[in-house]
Amino acid sequence: MATWIGDDHGSGFTLDFLPYGIFSTDNLDARIGVAIGEYILDMKALTQERVFASIEFDHSTLEASTLNCYAAAGRKIHQGVRELLLELLSEDTTLGPELRDNEDRKKRVLIKMVGATMHLPMSIGDYTDFFIGPYHAQNCTDIFRPGAGLPPNYLSLPVGYAGRASSIVASGTPVRRPKGQFVVNKMPTFGPCQNLDFEVEFAAFIGQGNDMGSSIDVDEAENYIFGFVLMNDWSARDIQVWESTPLGPFNGKNFATTISPWIVPLEALEQFREKPVKLVKRLPYLDEKKECSVYNIPIHVSLEDESGKYDMFKCNTKNVLFSFAQLLAHHTAGGCPMRTGDLIATGTLSGTSRHELGCLLEASRNGIESYEMEAIGPERQKTSRSFLKDGDIIEFRALGFGSCVGQVAPSV
Amino acid sequence: MATWIGDDHGSGFTLDFLPYGIFSTDNLDARIGVAIGEYILDMKALTQERVFASIEFDHSTLEASTLNCYAAAGRKIHQGVRELLLELLSEDTTLGPELRDNEDRKKRVLIKMVGATMHLPMSIGDYTDFFIGPYHAQNCTDIFRPGAGLPPNYLSLPVGYAGRASSIVASGTPVRRPKGQFVVNKMPTFGPCQNLDFEVEFAAFIGQGNDMGSSIDVDEAENYIFGFVLMNDWSARDIQVWESTPLGPFNGKNFATTISPWIVPLEALEQFREKPVKLVKRLPYLDEKKECSVYNIPIHVSLEDESGKYDMFKCNTKNVLFSFAQLLAHHTAGGCPMRTGDLIATGTLSGTSRHELGCLLEASRNGIESYEMEAIGPERQKTSRSFLKDGDIIEFRALGFGSCVGQVAPSV
Repeated sequence: MATWIGDDHGSGFTLDFLPYGIFSTDNLDARIGVAIGEYILDMKALTQERVFASIEFDHSTLEASTLNCYAAAGRKIHQGVRELLLELLSEDTTLGPELRDNEDRKKRVLIKMVGATMHLPMSIGDYTDFFIGPYHAQNCTDIFRPGAGLPPNYLSLPVGYAGRASSIVASGTPVRRPKGQFVVNKMPTFGPCQNLDFEVEFAAFIGQGNDMGSSIDVDEAENYIFGFVLMNDWSARDIQVWESTPLGPFNGKNFATTISPWIVPLEALEQFREKPVKLVKRLPYLDEKKECSVYNIPIHVSLEDESGKYDMFKCNTKNVLFSFAQLLAHHTAGGCPMRTGDLIATGTLSGTSRHELGCLLEASRNGIESYEMEAIGPERQKTSRSFLKDGDIIEFRALGFGSCVGQVAPSV
Repeated sequence: MATWIGDDHGSGFTLDFLPYGIFSTDNLDARIGVAIGEYILDMKALTQERVFASIEFDHSTLEASTLNCYAAAGRKIHQGVRELLLELLSEDTTLGPELRDNEDRKKRVLIKMVGATMHLPMSIGDYTDFFIGPYHAQNCTDIFRPGAGLPPNYLSLPVGYAGRASSIVASGTPVRRPKGQFVVNKMPTFGPCQNLDFEVEFAAFIGQGNDMGSSIDVDEAENYIFGFVLMNDWSARDIQVWESTPLGPFNGKNFATTISPWIVPLEALEQFREKPVKLVKRLPYLDEKKECSVYNIPIHVSLEDESGKYDMFKCNTKNVLFSFAQLLAHHTAGGCPMRTGDLIATGTLSGTSRHELGCLLEASRNGIESYEMEAIGPERQKTSRSFLKDGDIIEFRALGFGSCVGQVAPSV
């Protein structure tokens, strides 16, 4: 379907996606926008001009400075607004006077993306990080416990842990190399992390929550999801390895997590559906009716330093053992309440080949090897990394999601 | 120091403590109160009647329905308000006309505690649970990995993990027995938890936070703490044991955490200071100048069922390897931001003897033995538990903190 807005210049911000975000400009306070082509559609202004009047819901939810209230309005409302936006923006719209042919309104509500600042799209209550990438899990086992095999629970349930919500930042925020405690020559020591890494992940924002003590049925679970973002789970491997027995990662992870600023609604991803890797029969509470419950979305990873920009990895959201519906069914099985704005992430999305990995830990075998990359551009020069250097810019991109980017700042 | 308010009837709500909480009654919306004797002092009403006019700060922080804004005001303000309250309430007050001798005002601002409902005192962003009880850690090791010794990092850093904030509830909220996945006869299965347990903990609420990328100096860290509560970290042991390799506890913990409703300010606990157990020299970032950095506060644990109320354990907040100042210095060492309302807990506070344990896992050696208790009262009948039964009421009490109580509701 084509739009009268113009070319998306390869960003994927076409009519297919229409992701939501929170933006501000020099003249506009933080507000909800929808990405289309090179523009952000100002949803606050559109709402105030009563463009959504035909849809019955609390319109003030679209005038807020986070997406929480709108996300909580439920899928039916999101579908209705999306349909109206599709009609409003499509080349052969029947609503021309509402926007396409209304020059004054276009000036007011179509904001050039290049001049806008993007913010965290939701106020995040709890953040959960899973570990459902089977190739990632196998590689980690091979590195840290060679010959040990995957943990006995690994195929039976989605292994996960609670992450830190306070250090989740919007794409573009610099990430300071953390200091911490790790072991050098068998002695605990304190200093700047020596093994700084990233992790390519995919994450869902919760729209509607569940009450404490209730659980979410696996076949209903998608209705609780508002949409998806790319996520970089920055990791300090030396700190993490030393601290995480027996209770899991802590300071090795809680210093920063970056998300892409645009939340792609669940409705936009139907075309990418795919069957998950199924290795065992699931217990009934995880046995979903839907066959194609995961997504096939490539995520391109690049590294940029003063010498150039390098093509690093190509991961994929399909490299998981469980769907988001299964993650939610498991997470709430004991009655744990989800709240609007909670974030649920997959864990590292490594694939089977060396160029499909999702972190340097795997590519360098915990720093033993160096991973070589080729520059994007005509010169095709090379660089390599075992772990990240200060100044490195790590960027994840996926069509329609925009960019999840962060630069490593030196320790203070 | 005595108060004109009257007897505290053994609750410990004397002038020494003056804890803050959020209460409501049939006639009053949720608001800040201070516990004194059998009463709650209505801080919203007192503020509106300009009783705190002599202290310069944003007085609207005391008119809110959570303690977050007031907690963020900083220690100097809290000290000032506390001094004024001490003067206002002491037997030989020089401020008699302000309250003691003002019958009208007394009627308005002194609310009978027995008729009030207590709520969560803070809006909680992130919740961190540590594992710094050395006797608890040793007992767990003996049960699950006999002969293995403590983890190698255990003495060198405070081991901890992120917990679930959405399922933290105020004392009195029923706790539903969670369903979940665990192993029976070597097969993963799904059903109501068979090994339901509690954990006696002590927790601090953050007052002022730190910026992302900055860290909190160990000798400054107490200034970031608003006050303390008792905490019950309900635990589903069968679920926890199966799920927690390699990333730590998840559904075994995230179904419920209960806190006592009254936050005892840091200032009130000076009299309980004690030296922590020091087993090794700390790295400099954890090496605090203050010697007596932990507290000696007994916590009494009782179990009540239809047959009576039983004296179960007597734990103590001193059974820890690290102070809260050290916990905060470690937690923020890598730049992790604390926010007002974040909750930091010690982990289980077991002591050295059988009657000083902090959970049934230890007392029953993971369900192998039965732990016998004697009833409180003249009949001194006995009962025993390996793990909790439906209907059991678990209560923690400490002088001046009130009660942290929850009843086990059956699975649905």
